[in-house]
Amino acid sequence: MKEPLTVVKVGGNVIDDEQALEAFLHDFAALNGKKILVHGGGKLATRMAEQLGIAQQMMNGRRITDAETLKIVTMVYAGYINKNIVAKLQALDCNAIGLTGADANVVPATKRPVKDGVDYGFVGDVTAPLSTRSWQIFMHTLTPVVAAITHDGKGNLLNTNADTMAQEIAKAMSSLYSVQLVYLFEKPGVLRNAADDNSVIPAIDFAYYRQLKAEKVIFEGMIPKMDNAFEALQNGVCKVMIGHAGALQKLINGQAGTSITHD
Amino acid sequence: MKEPLTVVKVGGNVIDDEQALEAFLHDFAALNGKKILVHGGGKLATRMAEQLGIAQQMMNGRRITDAETLKIVTMVYAGYINKNIVAKLQALDCNAIGLTGADANVVPATKRPVKDGVDYGFVGDVTAPLSTRSWQIFMHTLTPVVAAITHDGKGNLLNTNADTMAQEIAKAMSSLYSVQLVYLFEKPGVLRNAADDNSVIPAIDFAYYRQLKAEKVIFEGMIPKMDNAFEALQNGVCKVMIGHAGALQKLINGQAGTSITHD
Repeated sequence: MKEPLTVVKVGGNVIDDEQALEAFLHDFAALNGKKILVHGGGKLATRMAEQLGIAQQMMNGRRITDAETLKIVTMVYAGYINKNIVAKLQALDCNAIGLTGADANVVPATKRPVKDGVDYGFVGDVTAPLSTRSWQIFMHTLTPVVAAITHDGKGNLLNTNADTMAQEIAKAMSSLYSVQLVYLFEKPGVLRNAADDNSVIPAIDFAYYRQLKAEKVIFEGMIPKMDNAFEALQNGVCKVMIGHAGALQKLINGQAGTSITHD
Repeated sequence: MKEPLTVVKVGGNVIDDEQALEAFLHDFAALNGKKILVHGGGKLATRMAEQLGIAQQMMNGRRITDAETLKIVTMVYAGYINKNIVAKLQALDCNAIGLTGADANVVPATKRPVKDGVDYGFVGDVTAPLSTRSWQIFMHTLTPVVAAITHDGKGNLLNTNADTMAQEIAKAMSSLYSVQLVYLFEKPGVLRNAADDNSVIPAIDFAYYRQLKAEKVIFEGMIPKMDNAFEALQNGVCKVMIGHAGALQKLINGQAGTSITHD
């Protein structure tokens, strides 16, 4: 029987809201057992870029990362957000350590190749599967807090999708731990009706996912999140939950959110 | 016989110069044995603050850190500079990990009290002596790269003097290792004549330091650096060297720079 490990991914909507972040970190610090937090960015990077006069380009909902944008993203995600979360968790008696993929080489990546004429710039695709060797150094006594920045092993940092990063970490750690992966966002779960927060679907397996996609109940940004969830389940992760950042413990207890199941 | 450890502090002048930084990191990666790098800031933080319209205040050569300045400093030091150094060292086969004092609580601090009516703002004085417990997690396989940011244990980050941070780390680690501390800056060593780079004083002990201060040969910014050096020597550090960032190996071999000795 492997020891349990909870990998939690928290998104920009919580990062941007000081009170929501404070409440979430309180819940995260109180979680029993080993845990890893993966965080996204939020609007601060966009705001900083605007203030500095750096134009943002988006492509299929993903930021195109030029050199100046990478600089901002590194400053905001790996600097400001990551270190503030670490300091706040320390104050809550959670012995946090902030990491990017470059630190101790915990998440190596390669620059995403140009595809169909689209160059995403300094964007990293994780070199899977991750080695767990470096992670083991931290897992005995520390709680990693991971900013979604990786590196290419040639000295370059790369902007990386935080959902995918959480999934890759969860997958790799499942060789050592019994891993549950929790995706937190602004909705109470996967909704049958996007306009109705009371329409949470409590459980989705792969067959049902295909049906919901065909019915266009699941669409846009939810699709990569769901794909990440099934990818994790197909590669050793025991359990994936999706739900509201304010309901972390309830999600884990199965009292809220959507639980994604293997079949 | 304790295992040797080299603590190197590199300043803003190297950080600001891409070629000099590249050359220095190459030399640092090539250093034998266990090592820790502590880095200062450089002009990027000042430039960012200017671009964002945040006015800088200085007091006795130290930045007064208001909330907005702390934000910039955290982004630039702990984000951009720290993570770029880590990625570059990783590319040089040096298994680096970026840290601030908040990470794994490696350098706790307290906000500097208001003194003689001067409030330095979010500036941290290291809570000495540091515990080596968290450091030991990293020292077996990793090379810590430390940004001069600490935390107060109550959730606040604090801007901290990098020279002092290097000294406190060196002192604490001397209970486990035979520590040498190297201060790198833009001069080839402590100069008898500030205008003549060929006037390096090869060795200074405490009596000679007092004499050089009385003669005003050592003045201004050099005084806190020298005070840090003697503080380290009086508390277990074996050797302190001061010299040019381009001469790291020569400094360590005693072929360049100024060596500070206990008596």
